[in-house]
Amino acid sequence: MSRSRPLRIGMVGGGPGAFIGDVHRRAIRLDGLATLVAGVFSSDPQKSKAHAAELGVERAYGSYEEMAEAEAARDDGIDVVSIVTPNWLHAPVAHAFIARGISVICDKPMTTTLADAEALVRAVREAGVVFALTHNYTGYPLVKQARALVADGVIGEVRKVVAEYSQGWLATAVEREGSKQAAWRTDPEKAGAGALGDIGSHAENLAAYVTGLRLDRLCADVRTFVPGRAIDDDANVLLRYEGGAAQQGGAQTAGAGGVLHCSQIAAGVENDLRLRVSGTEGTLIWRQEEPNALRLLPREGQERVYRRGHDDLAPAARHATRLPPGHPEAFFEAFANVYANALRTIAARRDGREPDPLDLDFPTVEDGARGVHFIQTALESGRREAWVDASYTPPA
Amino acid sequence: MSRSRPLRIGMVGGGPGAFIGDVHRRAIRLDGLATLVAGVFSSDPQKSKAHAAELGVERAYGSYEEMAEAEAARDDGIDVVSIVTPNWLHAPVAHAFIARGISVICDKPMTTTLADAEALVRAVREAGVVFALTHNYTGYPLVKQARALVADGVIGEVRKVVAEYSQGWLATAVEREGSKQAAWRTDPEKAGAGALGDIGSHAENLAAYVTGLRLDRLCADVRTFVPGRAIDDDANVLLRYEGGAAQQGGAQTAGAGGVLHCSQIAAGVENDLRLRVSGTEGTLIWRQEEPNALRLLPREGQERVYRRGHDDLAPAARHATRLPPGHPEAFFEAFANVYANALRTIAARRDGREPDPLDLDFPTVEDGARGVHFIQTALESGRREAWVDASYTPPA
Amino acid sequence: MSRSRPLRIGMVGGGPGAFIGDVHRRAIRLDGLATLVAGVFSSDPQKSKAHAAELGVERAYGSYEEMAEAEAARDDGIDVVSIVTPNWLHAPVAHAFIARGISVICDKPMTTTLADAEALVRAVREAGVVFALTHNYTGYPLVKQARALVADGVIGEVRKVVAEYSQGWLATAVEREGSKQAAWRTDPEKAGAGALGDIGSHAENLAAYVTGLRLDRLCADVRTFVPGRAIDDDANVLLRYEGGAAQQGGAQTAGAGGVLHCSQIAAGVENDLRLRVSGTEGTLIWRQEEPNALRLLPREGQERVYRRGHDDLAPAARHATRLPPGHPEAFFEAFANVYANALRTIAARRDGREPDPLDLDFPTVEDGARGVHFIQTALESGRREAWVDASYTPPA
Amino acid sequence: MSRSRPLRIGMVGGGPGAFIGDVHRRAIRLDGLATLVAGVFSSDPQKSKAHAAELGVERAYGSYEEMAEAEAARDDGIDVVSIVTPNWLHAPVAHAFIARGISVICDKPMTTTLADAEALVRAVREAGVVFALTHNYTGYPLVKQARALVADGVIGEVRKVVAEYSQGWLATAVEREGSKQAAWRTDPEKAGAGALGDIGSHAENLAAYVTGLRLDRLCADVRTFVPGRAIDDDANVLLRYEGGAAQQGGAQTAGAGGVLHCSQIAAGVENDLRLRVSGTEGTLIWRQEEPNALRLLPREGQERVYRRGHDDLAPAARHATRLPPGHPEAFFEAFANVYANALRTIAARRDGREPDPLDLDFPTVEDGARGVHFIQTALESGRREAWVDASYTPPA
Repeated sequence: MSRSRPLRIGMVGGGPGAFIGDVHRRAIRLDGLATLVAGVFSSDPQKSKAHAAELGVERAYGSYEEMAEAEAARDDGIDVVSIVTPNWLHAPVAHAFIARGISVICDKPMTTTLADAEALVRAVREAGVVFALTHNYTGYPLVKQARALVADGVIGEVRKVVAEYSQGWLATAVEREGSKQAAWRTDPEKAGAGALGDIGSHAENLAAYVTGLRLDRLCADVRTFVPGRAIDDDANVLLRYEGGAAQQGGAQTAGAGGVLHCSQIAAGVENDLRLRVSGTEGTLIWRQEEPNALRLLPREGQERVYRRGHDDLAPAARHATRLPPGHPEAFFEAFANVYANALRTIAARRDGREPDPLDLDFPTVEDGARGVHFIQTALESGRREAWVDASYTPPA
Repeated sequence: MSRSRPLRIGMVGGGPGAFIGDVHRRAIRLDGLATLVAGVFSSDPQKSKAHAAELGVERAYGSYEEMAEAEAARDDGIDVVSIVTPNWLHAPVAHAFIARGISVICDKPMTTTLADAEALVRAVREAGVVFALTHNYTGYPLVKQARALVADGVIGEVRKVVAEYSQGWLATAVEREGSKQAAWRTDPEKAGAGALGDIGSHAENLAAYVTGLRLDRLCADVRTFVPGRAIDDDANVLLRYEGGAAQQGGAQTAGAGGVLHCSQIAAGVENDLRLRVSGTEGTLIWRQEEPNALRLLPREGQERVYRRGHDDLAPAARHATRLPPGHPEAFFEAFANVYANALRTIAARRDGREPDPLDLDFPTVEDGARGVHFIQTALESGRREAWVDASYTPPA
Repeated sequence: MSRSRPLRIGMVGGGPGAFIGDVHRRAIRLDGLATLVAGVFSSDPQKSKAHAAELGVERAYGSYEEMAEAEAARDDGIDVVSIVTPNWLHAPVAHAFIARGISVICDKPMTTTLADAEALVRAVREAGVVFALTHNYTGYPLVKQARALVADGVIGEVRKVVAEYSQGWLATAVEREGSKQAAWRTDPEKAGAGALGDIGSHAENLAAYVTGLRLDRLCADVRTFVPGRAIDDDANVLLRYEGGAAQQGGAQTAGAGGVLHCSQIAAGVENDLRLRVSGTEGTLIWRQEEPNALRLLPREGQERVYRRGHDDLAPAARHATRLPPGHPEAFFEAFANVYANALRTIAARRDGREPDPLDLDFPTVEDGARGVHFIQTALESGRREAWVDASYTPPA
Repeated sequence: MSRSRPLRIGMVGGGPGAFIGDVHRRAIRLDGLATLVAGVFSSDPQKSKAHAAELGVERAYGSYEEMAEAEAARDDGIDVVSIVTPNWLHAPVAHAFIARGISVICDKPMTTTLADAEALVRAVREAGVVFALTHNYTGYPLVKQARALVADGVIGEVRKVVAEYSQGWLATAVEREGSKQAAWRTDPEKAGAGALGDIGSHAENLAAYVTGLRLDRLCADVRTFVPGRAIDDDANVLLRYEGGAAQQGGAQTAGAGGVLHCSQIAAGVENDLRLRVSGTEGTLIWRQEEPNALRLLPREGQERVYRRGHDDLAPAARHATRLPPGHPEAFFEAFANVYANALRTIAARRDGREPDPLDLDFPTVEDGARGVHFIQTALESGRREAWVDASYTPPA
């Protein structure tokens, strides 16, 4: 493959000590597809400049508006911006760049309100830019393999989904003990939602990506366990999907079903995102903490374990790996897969080429809107203590 | 320990090919605490006799009424009866023996109606017999260890329970393809409930046993996926417990929470009963298919893995094991633990001794009534598609 | 299957507190194929009688000679004797019963000298009795599945064997702290060999059973780590097998190769017996502490996990299981498989029937002699610090 | 930490399609500590230039001599060179750069002869440059944790080491089917040794790094299984270490012992590097394919599982990680740890600072010489079929 000029990327957010900003930067570096050349690393221009110098980033700005305007005006301005701010800033920052034709790679959840999310969908469509959302867990090669196996009918018609994501880092009030990240993530104004927003949305995205199913209804129990906390830190959700396998009549109803549960107060648990999908012909099991294996329990015959790196995996899974079997890949590589696909798509657009279909495999602005709808719907169901309509179609 | 005469035990049910009858017989034999001397193995007296001969059982009967009457009249009659019939027969068979002062070890779920369950509670109390229910999974030593750790406060105040039990053996309509067991288990008259009754009740029992928590409310999604089936084969249940850790006010409500989900249509899954309990100080994880390990994830410090057979386990766990570490024990041994504790308690009563407190560790008739209440409540919640009251106190 | 009279079995050894005697008794009881009716449980006749009473065993003797003579003289004398004494007594006890036409089920290793082992081979052949050696680990259903897969060529021609067995219970001098079992097992006179005899022989048996390969040469490093101990507590052995896959010429030599290592001083390790066999087409992996799964890593394609209880396992594996998939079986059940096969073979001989070929699947007196030869050869290699001839053919 | 100018790095080797060259480049990029600015990517200057352009590398050369001379002459010449050629070229390439005062990061094994290795030791010492060998597996944080636990005496005095490394990719003659990597790795002239050199040396390095023990003697069985192959593809090695735990006298000898086995013909196995170390107080277990966990089996008490990312790990382990617990790290990150420590050390030297002691944690030229000595000694033992002296001290 001949190589054109690497893309120029900017970053908003990701100041000193920010966890997710560092992750995005490594994801950018791993494949060398883009160079980080500009950023707003602090609202204080001096601090922003100092951190840029630390990072070896040429151009530092004190605000995203200034950066958007200045970069759009340069001949060698950025092709794409990476947004790694707290959630409530995603929308305004994104609009500033989209409005100037600059593509966006944005952290999740996309926005703190559905109105914001839908406005973003419309803006992206109008501007014709690329927008990628870093639901990084669907970047894992074996998650892509799971999606391919479901699509190929290997487990038959899907009947049951169990999506779960447990963490323990918010089991105590660390937001009051100096954790900056915990502080904004537990602030309803800045985060929009707590466990549901931060990790429930990942579980929703993972289940949707693998199964392709659309939610119909849900019933959520949304909780706050840590005294004094103003946001949800635990949620359990009953799921009903459209269509699916169950028959009509009697006690039976249509559509696959499932459970999604997430918690940030599961003390001692690290980052336990899991998905199980059972269909008429078998069950698929994947776990983020051991991401290099995907188990298929067929209805008949032996369990099969798919492992990363093998030649007989689906094209999307092979496209998303860099190492042979047994040389494990992990979180950074999966994260970088979202970037690599989005960046190659952006480069193709820049160069007037059709993107490689394999590169179009990244979470979109519509996925982001659906995620925000899920979060808001679950919160509402929790408040009402009742089943609610969960079907959603993004604005056309 | 000096050894008194082994108990004499009878069996109702467990004819040729019956899975659970064979399990009960091996559980009886493993420890040699009782000898199987009488049984009704078929409603056809000739067949009953033939099967008794196969099994080396002395006395065969054609009906449980006949057996109860005859055995009660003998000097060397049975001390205890094991009931391994389909669910709907548990109550009448049990009453026949209880009424004659004969103790009962009964398969689960206890009855098909709550009225039956409560009548049984009263009968057992009046007769003063021992009644044990074979919720065999709480017989595992490391389940007992989990209970002890919770009771000792090792994981702090319990906040979240995830109990799950998945199987795949009913993913197709095997009840119409010659499986006798599937036939009665999917017949609402004979089984009372499907997945909820057969395995959901085990998950409920396991969670209650380990945590000691009492349910307050629940919201269930109860499903039937296999076309033509007249009983539930999948259920997901949101749980709220009384008391517990969450604070009052705002979006917050009192009491631990949780999820229980069970399925018999998870194609390819074998017998995947799991429990996770998170408290303020850590999380406990146990899985039936790998029963010799119990994981404790403390809020701080390294994960600890408790293994069966070690001297530093809780007394109840040590009391329930027969082999040193690394020599795995499994399903039969756990099942036999319910028997062993119940039989030693029955022997103590027979001999006028106080039972060893460690022997009193088996599921009781009250546990059985609570289990039936859970099943019925979940079914009702599913029908109403709403949260329902799930609190329960057995009849005094 | 119509059932004839259960066999009558006697036991020599297995007094109060003896670990392995209790295991043998439970293995006998689990299937109900034999009833324990006689025994020598102590060389003190009073103690022997008292323990027999504890166990509900009718006839107690003070010596094995007395027992052999008395039982042989009775119409209702034992059909078979179970020998669970320390190793050095296996041979004289076995001869006493064999000489009277009584079949033998004997603990391992078979004898403490090769001469004793070979004399036993000859005695068994002359007497025409059944002799089974309780190499219980080959009783696991998935070990039998592994053997069947190798025999069927699923992994092609075998090239490499890794057999290992680690324990930690002798990491300190427990033999001087009151452990009776440790005392005789570390006494060269009573045990013959230490780690090599107690567990190395299991590893050798397991590898031979699964692969069918015959040893050609070996080079052993035999060690004693615990100060003051007079017997080996750790050994590492290089293995060369006859025939096999490697080509002739150059640096290359014929025959599969391998490693066997065993240790009783691996502090903290429980009972970690493992086998890996690699052939030209794939690798099989089995581990005793998780006995319900057998992994097959094929040269191409996904790993397959064979699980116990499935209908598509080999006949020998299905013959050796009692529970459906997901209902785990473990140590006792595997142990009982050696008994069940041996007892059914003994019953067939008693009844003048041809034994079921599936029942003939238990370790024989010839396997025992080969095991003793392996132990003695490894000890010799360790003393000489050199490769030695390890080929062996039992006496004709 | 204030950040000085990133280092400039060059590369020799790593042309199109080369596996290990790509790995080194990603390791360089992940942390942004150095920029790849020059390279010899082919002996054909045109091809070298073309590949450099692909990679976005400024300066391409047609030979390493040319590159060393030119870079040494530039004001902005490279600070360090990465050598990723086949093994036989490591020494001459390294000398060319070392002679000009340029530091070296070199792939393993270091050289194909011990003479070459020792000459390199002397050259590095004379030139005073930094030399790091990419034994990447010791870059894993939990390997560093294991080393710290051993050093802290957590498992007491080491008695037994089991180091193993199995792969299956050379189970057939892929070197004759177009695999360039297999072709040179199975060519004795270019590789020096086969399985022993490529992966046995990793196992040796891992064991030495974790335990700190020095080999005393060894006895190896070195094999070639694939017909027509001219190099070893499988080896089993008995190990004796200096000093250690066993007592003198009798059958007992001094020093810890162990086994190292490696295979590239274990068909179906991916990259199964494992280490177990047993001491008087417990056993440590680590496995490369699941690198985020380290198990400690203490002699008494529960197994503890150390997981990457926790604050209570040893400083060296914390220094070697980039993500919080549960966000797995893997192969690239471990590889990058060797680079990061070496590059920070090189930068410190460049800037006239004392290196951070935590940065000095990377494999050195002396480790490389010891590794080559191990390989050569094992090959010799295999040829002689005898125990040989394995003690080694690099040239002073």
